[in-house]
Amino acid sequence: MATMSFRDAMFLLAESRERPTHVGSLMLFDRPEGAGPDYLADLHRQLVSGDVEIAPLFRRRAMRGVSTLGQWAWTTDDDVDIEYHVRLSALPRPGRIRELLELVSRLHGSLLDRHRPLWEFHLIEGVEGDRFAVYSKIHHAMMDGVRAMKHLEKALSTDPDRRDMAPFWAVDPRPGRTSRPVGEKAPAPTGWLGSTREYVGGALRTAGTFAEGVGQSLNVGPALVSSAYRGLVEHELALPFEAPPTMLNVPITGARRFAAQSWPLKRIQRVRERTGTTVNDVMLAMSAGALRRYLEAHEGLPDKPLVAALPVALEDSGSGNALGAILVNLATNEPDPAERLKKIRQSGLAAKENLQGRDPMTIAALSAVVAAPIGMGLVPGASAINQGFNLIISNVPGPKDPLYWEGAKLDGIYPISVPLDGQALNITVMSYADSMEIGVTGDRRAVPHLQHLLGYLEDALVELEAVADADA
Amino acid sequence: MATMSFRDAMFLLAESRERPTHVGSLMLFDRPEGAGPDYLADLHRQLVSGDVEIAPLFRRRAMRGVSTLGQWAWTTDDDVDIEYHVRLSALPRPGRIRELLELVSRLHGSLLDRHRPLWEFHLIEGVEGDRFAVYSKIHHAMMDGVRAMKHLEKALSTDPDRRDMAPFWAVDPRPGRTSRPVGEKAPAPTGWLGSTREYVGGALRTAGTFAEGVGQSLNVGPALVSSAYRGLVEHELALPFEAPPTMLNVPITGARRFAAQSWPLKRIQRVRERTGTTVNDVMLAMSAGALRRYLEAHEGLPDKPLVAALPVALEDSGSGNALGAILVNLATNEPDPAERLKKIRQSGLAAKENLQGRDPMTIAALSAVVAAPIGMGLVPGASAINQGFNLIISNVPGPKDPLYWEGAKLDGIYPISVPLDGQALNITVMSYADSMEIGVTGDRRAVPHLQHLLGYLEDALVELEAVADADA
Repeated sequence: MATMSFRDAMFLLAESRERPTHVGSLMLFDRPEGAGPDYLADLHRQLVSGDVEIAPLFRRRAMRGVSTLGQWAWTTDDDVDIEYHVRLSALPRPGRIRELLELVSRLHGSLLDRHRPLWEFHLIEGVEGDRFAVYSKIHHAMMDGVRAMKHLEKALSTDPDRRDMAPFWAVDPRPGRTSRPVGEKAPAPTGWLGSTREYVGGALRTAGTFAEGVGQSLNVGPALVSSAYRGLVEHELALPFEAPPTMLNVPITGARRFAAQSWPLKRIQRVRERTGTTVNDVMLAMSAGALRRYLEAHEGLPDKPLVAALPVALEDSGSGNALGAILVNLATNEPDPAERLKKIRQSGLAAKENLQGRDPMTIAALSAVVAAPIGMGLVPGASAINQGFNLIISNVPGPKDPLYWEGAKLDGIYPISVPLDGQALNITVMSYADSMEIGVTGDRRAVPHLQHLLGYLEDALVELEAVADADA
Repeated sequence: MATMSFRDAMFLLAESRERPTHVGSLMLFDRPEGAGPDYLADLHRQLVSGDVEIAPLFRRRAMRGVSTLGQWAWTTDDDVDIEYHVRLSALPRPGRIRELLELVSRLHGSLLDRHRPLWEFHLIEGVEGDRFAVYSKIHHAMMDGVRAMKHLEKALSTDPDRRDMAPFWAVDPRPGRTSRPVGEKAPAPTGWLGSTREYVGGALRTAGTFAEGVGQSLNVGPALVSSAYRGLVEHELALPFEAPPTMLNVPITGARRFAAQSWPLKRIQRVRERTGTTVNDVMLAMSAGALRRYLEAHEGLPDKPLVAALPVALEDSGSGNALGAILVNLATNEPDPAERLKKIRQSGLAAKENLQGRDPMTIAALSAVVAAPIGMGLVPGASAINQGFNLIISNVPGPKDPLYWEGAKLDGIYPISVPLDGQALNITVMSYADSMEIGVTGDRRAVPHLQHLLGYLEDALVELEAVADADA
């Protein structure tokens, strides 16, 4: 039995029936050529047959009781009921993406069973176009979304002919992480961190360790976390922005809506090149344009600009969660898309300056303590705190090459995130081969017609392409 | 806004992620002749189209807050998101009953969203044999299982040619119940109550009102309910039996398993006639025989006999819940099936005598207060109380004639009940036309191989048929 770090445990402490704190992913696969009608059922049978060894991480079960002095700890489940975790489902006819998103929204809304290891894996048959889907779900206390996606990828292969592949629960991601010899180069930075790291250089490297220490020392409970946070905000470390209240910043209910779409990476790269910005800037500008349209359509566009929190992966800290964040002004009050992109770009640079003048511990406090999880509305009572941002926009680095699973080609992979009290909408971006995949996760009640955001994202990209053409 | 009776509210108060307190039902339908592949999708579209008026009861939403002084109350949801409540699902191939029970077990394990009216209705396509299924789910705070099944039936018809039928959420069952003029004959007693009423005569008629009063006066909280219960047990009203601890009497987890099967009513009636018992006696003997085999297979058959609590419907009390209970010795320690049936029969008669010597208020206290919900393990801390029974076996009276829905013939209808802390297994029996349908609902962990109980029920009936043949 191992005591859980506070950073992991808080995702259990803060969870409620209205706020499940698991992350998910949706993968779409082409059925291999010549696959019979029982292809997926056979695959399912093989996965639950008991031939697959379950890695220790995926046997871990959360527990607390007298023996742990009431603290959350990890224990090992020696009798994992694999048929509970690995499930076969089907879409109703005609099996369009619409039916798939409907099912995945439902699956993502239900809680994981705390009496078992905190993950599920759903094979879904009946997707039109001779495809099938996989929805997987893992508790944030086990690992954050970036790590979960990375781990899912590891279970895929670039080789279309590989078979009898080990599923993700047969592979323990931890040894590879923790056994890196001293002096060996750390893995390349990822996601928003790519640019963040430019901003802050080596400073961020020590952040994980520090944030971990902060988390541990805050073990006494949410009240202290809240006041620590207030101290940070009220004194030196005032947040750079104040986010305006919007319809997206309300308490949430227990039901979810998820929508997702792929965009050709080339279109985004073309805008980036012609406007002298980064892919991240363009993705944020797409999100900003879409949010502006959405809020206008609901007559709720505030005069002040929306603020996004961008999670960054910190150096490995022994916890499954290594999240910090930076804040970016989305300039949603700017009607001109060219100006909006410029302001977003400038805001990113300002974040750089803001971080540069500070010592590593301050950066860690700003990014790790402020933004995740307190700013995320996880801590009860923290919502009373002045809102620092309107939504979280994550960038999860994805695989560069086309991947396969048991001969089935991965057609698309979409991250599904965690709406929170006060943050009813989440946008997560993920690259895969020559696509940019965007997953939008929201509370079903607070974010009506969430799927319209997909169209608005496309509209925003078209606008940016016009800006790029004008610049050229 | 209307304050909820304590009897209804306790199902919300006691609910947790491990203990959802909704009841369910599974209906199997034959697709009408000539129905095309889109029959169910079209039906679904029609049901969620907005043309269907939602009855006030199914717009009710549970709430509590400052305005209700922290008590649970009913408020009206003026903006019901019907697509959330009425869902279309599908079975993976080959769509056997096995796949259906797997899906229904999952659906039954997830919590209803308290931000919405507490019901769901799932159309399920892809059931082999050209069939489809309906799983519906309603919170116990809204109505008990008997009432829910009755209400579902009302939305069906004996006429195979009827179309454009009002679904159950378009019909409010309450006016019919509450507007019965004084002096008009009460509806015929139902289920176990049929026999219970023989035992206690008119006494039971006033029980509902009294139990309601008890519930209301207990509004102060579970602690007082527990001590009231202890008072009852320790003083005059000691329970007639003490149930032995078994593997079924343990805390439960968040996952469920459900299994169901139909038996020809004729077989049960033949045993009843030849042994001079009642259908209820035979159903209890089947359950007892099955439980004996199951516990033997798990090396957990206690020396002392298992005790079953049999809910009885009480007179209407204005609450959606009108449950009392009697206790019956299942004689599971008796190896001889003939002797076992005899003892079960005698135990039923003893229950009659036990009730007969008491005044109506005492009967109400025994049946309503003792058995439901305190004895049901709903009240936190009540599990420390000496266990009065091992499981609940319910008898839900079903329709006598074959029923149809939009031209689809109802093939089978199975009640799905609520496993509780300390009562990990529930058996519910329901008659329909010339069948006896048995639904077995259990905790997925505490009741391994729950589906084996179906085979054991059949074995027990075969044994009883041998007893009947010997008697003849």
